[in-house]
Amino acid sequence: MPRVVVDVVPKPEILDPQGQAIVRALPRMGLRGVRDVRQGKHFELDVDDEVDAQTLHRIAGELLANPVIENWTVRRL
Amino acid sequence: MPRVVVDVVPKPEILDPQGQAIVRALPRMGLRGVRDVRQGKHFELDVDDEVDAQTLHRIAGELLANPVIENWTVRRL
Repeated sequence: MPRVVVDVVPKPEILDPQGQAIVRALPRMGLRGVRDVRQGKHFELDVDDEVDAQTLHRIAGELLANPVIENWTVRRL
Repeated sequence: MPRVVVDVVPKPEILDPQGQAIVRALPRMGLRGVRDVRQGKHFELDVDDEVDAQTLHRIAGELLANPVIENWTVRRL
């Protein structure tokens, strides 16, 4: 069964407090060299063969992501 | 500056109520053919050139993922 991955990330102009919290936590753990972190969502979908690109675009843009504040990518594995 | 992507997903034996909620919502939106969804986290890190694979492994396994219930992958873009 085909597997599809949808990754959703906050748009560049949108603040990402979760990512910023991670950036600040790393030096306290002795881990240096990370300049920026953006946190998003990762979805793995098992789909029937006949699910087409337009359907995947609707799933990503209408359910998995909020197009006002998030960008997304769809890729078939 | 190198970019690294860390994807974190619940282990197969761990229930994923968020993913299951998405599976149930899709037919109500007229979107058919999706058999399973797993929801995880997606991180994009901007790192210095000298950040090595061992450091990235620690960042993923000690801060971004919970190794008891989640698997993760690290890839450099």
